[in-house]
Parts: sequence; structure tokens; C-alpha cells
Amino acid sequence: MLKVSVIGATGFTGEELVRRLVSHPKVKLTYVCGKESRSEKIQDLFPSLKGVDLPCHAFDPKKAIESSDFVFLSLPNTVSMKVAPQFLEAGKHVVDISADYRMDNELIFKAAYGAQHEDTDNLKKAIYGLPELYREKIRASSFIANPGCYPTSVLLALLPLLDKGLSPKGICIMDAKSGVTGAGRKASVQLNFSDTNENFKAYRVLSHPHEHEIGHVLKQQRAAWDFVFVPHLLPLNRGILTTLYVPTDKAKSPKKLQEIFKSFYASEPFVTVLPDGKLPEIRHVRGTNQCHLGLSFRASQNMLVIVSAIDNLVKGAAGQAIQNMNIMCGFEEGLGLS
Amino acid sequence: MLKVSVIGATGFTGEELVRRLVSHPKVKLTYVCGKESRSEKIQDLFPSLKGVDLPCHAFDPKKAIESSDFVFLSLPNTVSMKVAPQFLEAGKHVVDISADYRMDNELIFKAAYGAQHEDTDNLKKAIYGLPELYREKIRASSFIANPGCYPTSVLLALLPLLDKGLSPKGICIMDAKSGVTGAGRKASVQLNFSDTNENFKAYRVLSHPHEHEIGHVLKQQRAAWDFVFVPHLLPLNRGILTTLYVPTDKAKSPKKLQEIFKSFYASEPFVTVLPDGKLPEIRHVRGTNQCHLGLSFRASQNMLVIVSAIDNLVKGAAGQAIQNMNIMCGFEEGLGLS
Amino acid sequence: MLKVSVIGATGFTGEELVRRLVSHPKVKLTYVCGKESRSEKIQDLFPSLKGVDLPCHAFDPKKAIESSDFVFLSLPNTVSMKVAPQFLEAGKHVVDISADYRMDNELIFKAAYGAQHEDTDNLKKAIYGLPELYREKIRASSFIANPGCYPTSVLLALLPLLDKGLSPKGICIMDAKSGVTGAGRKASVQLNFSDTNENFKAYRVLSHPHEHEIGHVLKQQRAAWDFVFVPHLLPLNRGILTTLYVPTDKAKSPKKLQEIFKSFYASEPFVTVLPDGKLPEIRHVRGTNQCHLGLSFRASQNMLVIVSAIDNLVKGAAGQAIQNMNIMCGFEEGLGLS
Amino acid sequence: MLKVSVIGATGFTGEELVRRLVSHPKVKLTYVCGKESRSEKIQDLFPSLKGVDLPCHAFDPKKAIESSDFVFLSLPNTVSMKVAPQFLEAGKHVVDISADYRMDNELIFKAAYGAQHEDTDNLKKAIYGLPELYREKIRASSFIANPGCYPTSVLLALLPLLDKGLSPKGICIMDAKSGVTGAGRKASVQLNFSDTNENFKAYRVLSHPHEHEIGHVLKQQRAAWDFVFVPHLLPLNRGILTTLYVPTDKAKSPKKLQEIFKSFYASEPFVTVLPDGKLPEIRHVRGTNQCHLGLSFRASQNMLVIVSAIDNLVKGAAGQAIQNMNIMCGFEEGLGLS
Repeated sequence: MLKVSVIGATGFTGEELVRRLVSHPKVKLTYVCGKESRSEKIQDLFPSLKGVDLPCHAFDPKKAIESSDFVFLSLPNTVSMKVAPQFLEAGKHVVDISADYRMDNELIFKAAYGAQHEDTDNLKKAIYGLPELYREKIRASSFIANPGCYPTSVLLALLPLLDKGLSPKGICIMDAKSGVTGAGRKASVQLNFSDTNENFKAYRVLSHPHEHEIGHVLKQQRAAWDFVFVPHLLPLNRGILTTLYVPTDKAKSPKKLQEIFKSFYASEPFVTVLPDGKLPEIRHVRGTNQCHLGLSFRASQNMLVIVSAIDNLVKGAAGQAIQNMNIMCGFEEGLGLS
Repeated sequence: MLKVSVIGATGFTGEELVRRLVSHPKVKLTYVCGKESRSEKIQDLFPSLKGVDLPCHAFDPKKAIESSDFVFLSLPNTVSMKVAPQFLEAGKHVVDISADYRMDNELIFKAAYGAQHEDTDNLKKAIYGLPELYREKIRASSFIANPGCYPTSVLLALLPLLDKGLSPKGICIMDAKSGVTGAGRKASVQLNFSDTNENFKAYRVLSHPHEHEIGHVLKQQRAAWDFVFVPHLLPLNRGILTTLYVPTDKAKSPKKLQEIFKSFYASEPFVTVLPDGKLPEIRHVRGTNQCHLGLSFRASQNMLVIVSAIDNLVKGAAGQAIQNMNIMCGFEEGLGLS
Repeated sequence: MLKVSVIGATGFTGEELVRRLVSHPKVKLTYVCGKESRSEKIQDLFPSLKGVDLPCHAFDPKKAIESSDFVFLSLPNTVSMKVAPQFLEAGKHVVDISADYRMDNELIFKAAYGAQHEDTDNLKKAIYGLPELYREKIRASSFIANPGCYPTSVLLALLPLLDKGLSPKGICIMDAKSGVTGAGRKASVQLNFSDTNENFKAYRVLSHPHEHEIGHVLKQQRAAWDFVFVPHLLPLNRGILTTLYVPTDKAKSPKKLQEIFKSFYASEPFVTVLPDGKLPEIRHVRGTNQCHLGLSFRASQNMLVIVSAIDNLVKGAAGQAIQNMNIMCGFEEGLGLS
Repeated sequence: MLKVSVIGATGFTGEELVRRLVSHPKVKLTYVCGKESRSEKIQDLFPSLKGVDLPCHAFDPKKAIESSDFVFLSLPNTVSMKVAPQFLEAGKHVVDISADYRMDNELIFKAAYGAQHEDTDNLKKAIYGLPELYREKIRASSFIANPGCYPTSVLLALLPLLDKGLSPKGICIMDAKSGVTGAGRKASVQLNFSDTNENFKAYRVLSHPHEHEIGHVLKQQRAAWDFVFVPHLLPLNRGILTTLYVPTDKAKSPKKLQEIFKSFYASEPFVTVLPDGKLPEIRHVRGTNQCHLGLSFRASQNMLVIVSAIDNLVKGAAGQAIQNMNIMCGFEEGLGLS
């Protein structure tokens, strides 16, 4: 059994990680910790975890290192980079779920997050953990930067086009909508129920850091697309649905495009291209590690509309992190994810 | 035009007060203030208030006193009692929406809120502002303690029985359910959207201070009922629905009970006894100053079930406060409340 | 007092109309009817309408014509065109809230709705009731086709650009999100709570009839823009938020664009251009007849992003219908709309 | 592998059954059917069931009998009793999730559901499938009547008292609140999103058939309690929270009561008595087969308040049905339920 730690177990992603890891057949969860000093058991924090008898400590790096071989960092941005180096130095395998190691370049990190990177050595070593793009690199790596939730929903919608070298003839629009867990579990007037329920809004228009992450991966793929990304906040707990508008020029038939997507994802366990005429819905991916994709095409405008849906806490965070662990450790890729 | 201040305008109750007062035909809103120093206009805080050009100050008692004749205090419990005396001393009419002046007795206040009362003189003078019970006293008063939201929903369900001297044969159960605005607009992990949405829970079971308020009013009415009050938190913005279980002994027929209620409320503008067989729903009172009551009766157990619904921010707070102002000032009672 | 009928009073729009008309100071609601024969009073259908003592009939054209001078048709598409002619023939003023008379051309109607138009004479006479575009024509007309909810949210975002003759350099993307009342009050598995709550989806992608309505109005304005419209379904009751992506070529500064919008809407009572840096939210327009607009601009891409928010049942339906009535009848434009 | 059919797979309970059975390690799902003739695969109906390649037929009893040894009936009340006999006659094991076989007496069935029972022979043979009460009888039976969702939440709260022969001194109040999936997946104006969201109401007050089911089980336990049951509809998808008010006479200390409950459920895998001072919340049981119980006690009134929470689709329906199958077949009781 692989001995696993979750550093930052009390947020939504940490909770989802713990819930899935305790029933993962190859894993023994040996250490979890939360933001503050707690004497509570993890079961008291999350009463649905009946029978899990693990204490939830204040973070003690030494204890974490001693008790585990594999570490999930589920920490706020700019905090992970203070913590990751000691685990890596101790030879642990690490999946970092924060944004800290997703760019291989500290300037892009600074442009996106407005902060100086403090661990540029490891920044260059981390592999971007999108299995559908980098599975072999992930398999060979011991340090994974788990993708952001929005970039996961966007990139999975674009990989088949990138693979064929197709690029948009004009600006690609990415209109993304996320449930509220995407903002984390925190005290905030902005996130209180009464002002969020029965509400909907765009936020950080033209200034969300995930736009940098998307652009960075596109460039890595030599696809320096012109695009605009605008996120919105949905009054629901879980799920991201992104609508992408990709102007094409060679008018591929809808059938041909459908085939390109179907064929690209034919053997992927966690991406489903819906049959022609069907569209993704958040309820169909909620609680799953699936990404659902639906295509529509208007020939008169050469306009391809792609709708992409994931659960932000699963394929967009904890589920993809476990998928990465499974790949890194040679486990069956779907363990803990059904 | 009556010059009116709202002290504490940025919470949910304050916002509802301001929204209704700006279109009240007999009122000129002359001063509003919020918790912190703000240079914003009230319209910037609440963008739906198009055309209202009032600045939202940090609280300045002198300015508030100079600019208004009538004052609404929409402040947290234990804060109102530090602020009310100066307005009263200056001869202003005051409706206090906090819990500070609802008991006429500092011991009961302390039992309910765990705090020492700091203004016992005015505590004795304040009139409990439930118009259906104390309309004439309210008319003659210049200082009103606006009832709590739960007590309003409970007491309006019981007044017709009190009026007839009927009391329960056994313990009366009051199972109350409130929307989230009842908890105020504040940063709190407990009130964040994701842990409140798709959730429901009881809270402060057998220890909610409103149980003291209900008991206090019952005793004022010489109805020292044996009762239990349990509040619950609904995943919706506005509304309280309370289900009351009143064991009776003389088996009044359902028809007779219906008549007692109908007749008691026949001329009340803001309480509606629904026709036999109809039950209140929160959506039917949302945004209104109405209380809807529905009765069911099981003869074999002499059990009367009363369902009572109000909007916690209107009849349970801001609406009732304006109703009290209308009564105090001799305005038509429904102004600003349709 | 203007004697007014509401034909189709039991849906969401009809309910909103009735609720606002009963407190409109220049109106006496004299006749309302619902889909089926009902003996109920309107107050029994909508218990929040305390004191309104109007019966809700099955539709009786003769009675409706006798009892009123002004008629709102709040009927399903393709039903209005069977009903409107008799009111028009009888000399009544009519605001039709269905889609039946929004195009002046039966071919476009057929392309959009797949049905043959049955009243082509009146089709040509109806004025499209968007006051910010056609106020003077509305004032002179006795037959108004009230705009669709999505087109209202889209067109109000574009009028300032149309007015300046600015048109997009490329395809304009209109990504629209609506609350569930937009689908009407009806029994439908698709609209049941449990499959709609905690869900979000695109629907009728590239095939929504409102895309025809938008295109039709743009062409009337000699602005045959290339655009794509995709609607989505939000898990909330009321509100539409549309995000528009307008590629421009002459790089107008954000400040200049802001001024164009501010100046165009300077004297409009129901459209607000938010200050620079502020973005519309559905909660700020809910229950109001307001449209809120927020602008963002990225100079490097000459990309203008406009966010537009309305309440679909108010500015998107019943509120705008009453605004049209006020204009047609020479009433103050905001009566019944505050 | 046990060959299993789900008769009625397209409702919420059927969907939950299928989702859990396809990953149950001892089960092969061999036959599922829906209300209407369908050529669809189950995966097309429920797109989250990636990789499940089973067709969803119109009901064909012969085919169902041939292809399976164990049958779940997830059918409307009064339909099950037309279908169950043929499976029982063919020697299949059956768990019926409808209400048809929960009483052992056709008169009580008729009193509760207003319908004549059509299969009184099997009515007497069926075992009421509440494992915490009848585990040994379930193990020995081939025909289980799966308990109702409300009765499950109520009875699990009372079993420890029944076990000790404690009964209420006065009327026990059961105030129950359920999410909307409890009403099934159907087209209904009452269940449409817009009138259910932001709403809360009591329904079938003093006339819900589950009150008969609760009374029937209590009588079987020689506990002919005097009680009142009132259900309410919560604006959320899943979960029931019931607040029970049990007047006691011998003032047991809270500690003693807590011990009675803790000890009664010490070895039960799916019932958790929360630590003193903690209260159940629906979010903590959502998606689980758990029942959470929390106790409060007021000595001055000898009043015990029990709060009980379950997921109505899991412990209240599909989960408990699978738990029963596990017991009947000698599988580990928690298989398919984590």
C-alpha cells in the first residue's frame, strides 16, 4: 500500500481527495493536516467519513515526510512553493494542486499571479499533469503540477484541434462558468450564500490568471492562438461548463470534426465526445472524473462551438490529481475515480 | 416629508429599509450610514437603487441627529443599546430592529443574550412593535423595539388563541425554518454558499435567544405556555415558515378554529388566514409584508397544526419596522409596503 | 383610469403583469383569464395578491373586449396571432408579449418558428417595442410587439455602437445565460427541479429563434452583423446575463467607449452603464426594469467585452410591456415599474 | 456474479440503483427497463455511466425473468403489485422499493393509499427491509419491502427507545423535511424549478401515507405511540432531515440517553450517533447510505429532541435496497455502498 499524505485537507479539494483516497485500494492515507492546529479527527471535520480514524494535525513537515511516500499539496497559491521543496528534497513523489508550478517560467508566473516565484529550480522540473496531453511525461516524473480547473475544461476541448494542427482564423472566445466551490472554502462576504444564490456574474474579466495558464500550454504546443477567456460564477456547488467559439477557415464538415474528436479521445477513459446533437450538462459530470464534450458547427460562418463540462473538484482538481498519482505509480488509471 | 435616517444601511435589513423608504411617499431619506467609513454613494453599494444619490457615511451621531426626525436602528444586538439613548435624548422617534429592547427586563435579556444591558431606563420604555398585538401602544410611543423574525412568525400564529384564552394541553412545539438572510450579511465559513446550498440543518436547538423573546411575550399576555422552539436553516434567501403543533383539549371543530382565526384577523391588512385546505408557502409571501397562516386539525388527537409564513426581511424586519413608523406617524399603515 | 385586460394571466409573465398592474396608479385591471376554465379568483391563484378580488376566467373574447380598452397578450407563440386580430379590429390598444409580431416579415417568422403566420396584415403594422430604440414609434402606435428577453439583453448592449455606426470586425459572439422562468410555467421533465437545480447547460445551440429576432433588428438598423448567439440555462429563477464579445478595429480607448455608452443612455430611465471597473450582476437587476451594462476592453486584441444584465420577467417581458403601455398612453414612463 | 434486473430504471431511484450496481463487485446488471419503449442504451439516458453498454428496454417480463436471478422493482405505488407476483412465482429474489408490500395488512394499505391491494398473498410474506430492525428476517427472506424514505428517517431515530421499552408521555411530533427527488422524476407544474426553488412548504399535512407506515411498524413493535407526522418540501435535490420531539417522563439524563443510542447502534455500519453537541446536516449524509442522529434534551420539560438525517435516494431508497440484497445474498453488507 502506498503511504500518502494530504497537506491541506480541510478545503473542498482536500476533502474530495481524502474522501477518494480512503477508499482507494492501493493507498493508505497516513497523514493529513489543516490550516490551523486541530486536535480533531478528520471524521469530526467531515462526518460522512465514517470509520476513518485519522487525526487532522497542524502541518508538521517532519511528521509528514516520515509517514508518507506520496504527497498531495492542496494549498493556496504562493504557499505551495514554500512547502514543496522539502518534500522533493526528501525524495517524495508530489502532486501540487496549487498554481505554483504550472508554468515553467517565473516571468509568466509573475504576470499571472503578481508574485515572485521562490522555487525556480523545481518550477522547471514540474510536469503539467494533464494526462490526455502528457501521460508519458507524467509516468516518468516525480513532481506534477496539477492543472487549473478552467484550463482543464478549455484544453481538453482543444487538444484534438491542436493535434491536427488546426488553429482558429480569428480570436477564439472561451466563455467559462464555474460553480462556487471553485473559490474555495473560506469566510468571505462575496461568497456568502445570500448574495451568491439567485445570482450570476462575470468576474476578473480579461484578468484571470488561468488565461495565462491556457496561453502558456498553447504556446508549449506551438499554438500561439489569439483568444479571450472570461469566467463567470454559477449559483451551484460543483461544475464548470465552458463554451468555446472557434472560427475555422477550411470548412470541415461537422461529421469530419466529430470524427477528429471521437478518434482523438477513443481510448481515453475520462473524456467523452457526446454523440452528434447531444450537449454536455454539468449534472452528467458532477461527482465524476469525466470531461464531456459536445460539438456544434455552422457552415455559413465556419464557426465551431465546443461545449466542455467537468466537475471542478474532480477532473478539475482532486480527481485529476489521483489520476496523476495512478499514472506515476503504475496503478490502473481509474482506481479511486469511479 | 418626514426626515428619516437609517443607521446600519449595508446589511440585508438595512438594504431592504433603504429600498422601501426611497419610494415611500411621506418620507425623505436624509442620512444613511454603514459599518465602516465609506465614501461611496448608497447607489454604488446597491446598484439597483438607480437615481438615489445619498452618500453612505461612517456613523456620525451628530450629523444623524441634525438631519433626521425619525431613526431606524439596524444594528447588531448589543450595539443598538449604545446608540439608541442619544437619539431618544434628542427627542427623535426611534424604531430599533435589534433585539436590545424587546424584553422589558434586563434579566431576561441577559438570559437570552448573555450580555449585561447598558440602557435599562429605555429598556422599560420601549414598546414591542407587533402591530397586531400592540397597535395602540405603538401609536402612542416614540420608541419601538421591532420584533424578531422568528417571534413574529410564531406570535402571529398564536394571537387568535391567546385572544380567546385558549392554551395548549401539553407542550406546544414550534418547528421553525428560516432562509439564510436571517443570519445577516457577513463573512463566515458557516454561511459560505457551498456548505449552505444543498444543505439543511437544525441549529441552536433548545438554546436560541428568540425562544426567550417568545416566552416573554406569552407571559406578558398571561399565557405562560409550555413550549419548545427549534430553528432550522433553509437553503434559500428569504422567508420563514414555522410549523406549530398545539395540543388542545376541548375539541373545537376545524371550522370553529378557522372562524376564530378569520375573525381575529378580519381587518388586519398584513395577516391572511388561508381558506380551509390551503397551506402557506414561502414563495407567496416573499417580498411582501404579509403573514400567511394555514390551519389543520386532527380531531382524534385534539391536535391543531398551524403553518405560518413570512418574509424574514419584510414582516420579520424592515417591513414591520416601516409599518410601525406608519402607525407612529399617523400615515396610512400600508405605505411603502405594497 | 385605463381599463386593462391581461389575456394569459397564469404564467410567470402574466403573474408579473397582474402584480404590477394592480398597483399602477393609472390602471384598473378589469379582466384576466387563464388557460383553462377556472372559477378561482386571481388571489387564490397568486395568494400574495391580497385584496385583489378579480375572477380568473377562461378566455372569453367578447367579455374581454367589452371590459377593457388596453390589452396585454401573454400567450404562447403562434397562439397570439389567433387572438390579436379581434382586439385590434375592436379598436383596442394591444401589447403582444409573444414572438408572433416581432418580425415584419412572415418568411423570417417561419424561419425562426417553423410555423406559417396567420395574420400577416397586422404583422406589418406592429411596432417592435424596445423604447430605447423606437420610443417615438411606440408613442404613435396602438399595436406593440414586445421584444424577446434575450434580444432585449443583447440589443441594449449594442444600441450605442449601432448609433455610432460602429460594427464588429469579425464575428460578434453573444453568450447568453437565462434563469428558468424564461421557459415558462409548465409541466415538463426537462424543467423539473431536481434535474435543473445544480445543473447548467447550453441549449438550442445555433438554432434558437431569438437569433433570428436579433438579426432582424440589426438589419432594420442597417447593421447586418456577423454574429453567433448561444443560450444557456441557469439554475435560478429570474435574470439574464449576456456576455458579448465584439471585435473592433479602430482601437477606441476604453474611456472613449465608456463615454459613448454613458452618453447614449444618459437620459434613459431604465438602462445604466456601470462605472468603469464595475460589472453587472443578476441580483442587482432582479425585480427591477433595469438593464445594467458593463464594459471591458483589451487593446492588444481590439476586443470589447460587454456584459448585460436584465430581469427576464421585467425588462425582458412584463416590465417592458408596461413601459410600452405608459409610452402609448402618455403616462409617466416609470409608473408601475419602481 | 449475481445476475440482477432493475425494473424501472429511469427514475431517480432507478438511476441511483443502476449507478451503484454497475460497480458492485458481486453483481452483473443484466436487464434494465424504463417506462416507455426505448431503443436507447442506459448510457445515453445517464451519460455519466461511461462504459455501461446495457440497452434500456420497454418492460418484458419474460426477458427479465430469463436474464436475472435478483430483481429490484423501482416502480410507482400500485404498479409493483401487478408485477411482483410473476417474479416471485419464478423463484426470483425481489426487493420492491414501492410502498405496495410494506404493510402486512390490506386494510392498512387501503387506508394509506386509497387503493385495493391486488396481491394479498405476497403482502403477508414480504419482510419490511429495515436492516437495523429485521436483519435476521431479511437474511432468511426472498421478498423484501424496502421501507419508505420518511419512515426510514423516523424509525432509525426511535429504534433505541423502542428497544428499551421507552415510550413518549404525550404526543410525539415528527416534523420531516425532504428534498425534491423524493417526489420522483416527472413532469409536474408543482415540481417545476421556478415554483420550487426559493420556496418551502408543508404538504399533505396529517394525510401523508407514510404516517400509516410509521404507525404500522410501531404497532408491530408493540409501541402504539400517539404521534403526528408532517412532511415539508425543501428546495434541494437530496436528503431528508426529520426533527422528532419525544416527551419523556422519567427524566433520563442526556448522558444516559446518549449512551442508549450509542450502544444500540455501536455495531451498525450505517447509523451514526453524533457526539454530544453535534447536530446532523444533510450535506454530511448526501450521497451516502448513512443515517446521522443527534440528540438534545431539556430536563425542565423532559423533552427529547432527536434530529435524523439521511439521503432519501440512498438510505431512503436505492442504498437500503442494495444493503438488503447484500444481506439476502450473504455479501458483505457494505458492498456497493461506500
